[in-house]
Amino acid sequence: MTTKFSPTDRTRIHRLPAHGNYDRDVVHSILDEALVCHLAFVVDDQPYAIPTTFARIDDRLFVHGAAASRMIKTLAGGVRVCFTATLLDGIVLARSAFHHSMNYRSVVVLGTAEEVTDLAHKRRALDAIVDRTAESRSRCARPPNDKELAATRVLVLPIEEVSAKIRTGGPVDDEEDLALPVWAGHVPIRLRASDPIPAEGLAPGLVAPSNEKLL
Amino acid sequence: MTTKFSPTDRTRIHRLPAHGNYDRDVVHSILDEALVCHLAFVVDDQPYAIPTTFARIDDRLFVHGAAASRMIKTLAGGVRVCFTATLLDGIVLARSAFHHSMNYRSVVVLGTAEEVTDLAHKRRALDAIVDRTAESRSRCARPPNDKELAATRVLVLPIEEVSAKIRTGGPVDDEEDLALPVWAGHVPIRLRASDPIPAEGLAPGLVAPSNEKLL
Repeated sequence: MTTKFSPTDRTRIHRLPAHGNYDRDVVHSILDEALVCHLAFVVDDQPYAIPTTFARIDDRLFVHGAAASRMIKTLAGGVRVCFTATLLDGIVLARSAFHHSMNYRSVVVLGTAEEVTDLAHKRRALDAIVDRTAESRSRCARPPNDKELAATRVLVLPIEEVSAKIRTGGPVDDEEDLALPVWAGHVPIRLRASDPIPAEGLAPGLVAPSNEKLL
Repeated sequence: MTTKFSPTDRTRIHRLPAHGNYDRDVVHSILDEALVCHLAFVVDDQPYAIPTTFARIDDRLFVHGAAASRMIKTLAGGVRVCFTATLLDGIVLARSAFHHSMNYRSVVVLGTAEEVTDLAHKRRALDAIVDRTAESRSRCARPPNDKELAATRVLVLPIEEVSAKIRTGGPVDDEEDLALPVWAGHVPIRLRASDPIPAEGLAPGLVAPSNEKLL
């Protein structure tokens, strides 16, 4: 397996090309940290960007949804899709308004999704999605029964036409602005978890899963 | 001004309709908390979902970009766009794999963007975007000069065809699963800021802006 993806005309980063990244490891690490993606698709000439959860296995992305969902029905029809995962890493304050920015890592994958109909593959993909909520969670929770499996459709999107875009660090001000009496720098931000809140009626003695690996 | 938006066939929430919300105040509060949106648009039959920052003024959304950006050039052409802002609020762990979920608040706005060419309006929109990084930041930073203004295009999207979708709280397990020896509950998550990191060469005595209102 090569260590880099090959950008196409559509995935090559034109604006700020230095922020573009096509390394497989970088793409994977962003995908594995993001808990939510947005899927763009078109219905009746109207594009939509819909948030959903997902999982990655090797170079494949898996999303799922209710069998009746418009998004899943549309995407299962083999239309073009854009998968985007974005991590917001910081706010960048420059001396000039113009150079204000955000630090972020994002991945865009273009392609066509296919439904996963093989039941063993479908179960594996659903387990991977559940495992995004806590490590090995799919081994603790009651697995999907046949009715639940039938009510859920799983789609796979290959990670082939893909690029990452990354901005890090502080502001890049123009030299003539450097002495201005304006605070400049960056503020790192990240998702953090609070203490787990147990469900009502929980059987006694159960311990919440650690989310150390999650956030 | 009415307190509710009217859903259309495209924005009415069909899946889990109880999660749909059309209240103006709710829509505004989600938009004002989100620092990033995804814009979905189509170029050569390929949909894209691209992350960007934005600001809201009343019932209008503003986005900006380099004049050369493909996204801005495409959207300024008056094509259909979908604006989506998503806040991830928590992870929901159920006794059954099937009922695992995420807590979130999202807003979807459909429509057509227009370029803001009036310079006073354009400056006001850019100030509002800069003010997302810290309160009143546009009054501290060096304002855009004519060259910077010309290099930046601003688009406005009216908040008319809009819906919010919200999930809160713990898992909703099936009754026959409630006694299973599986921890269930939810883990609140939110974006948090760390201490600001000053830029190199900062003039002495300057104080970082408080981000209390930001995150």
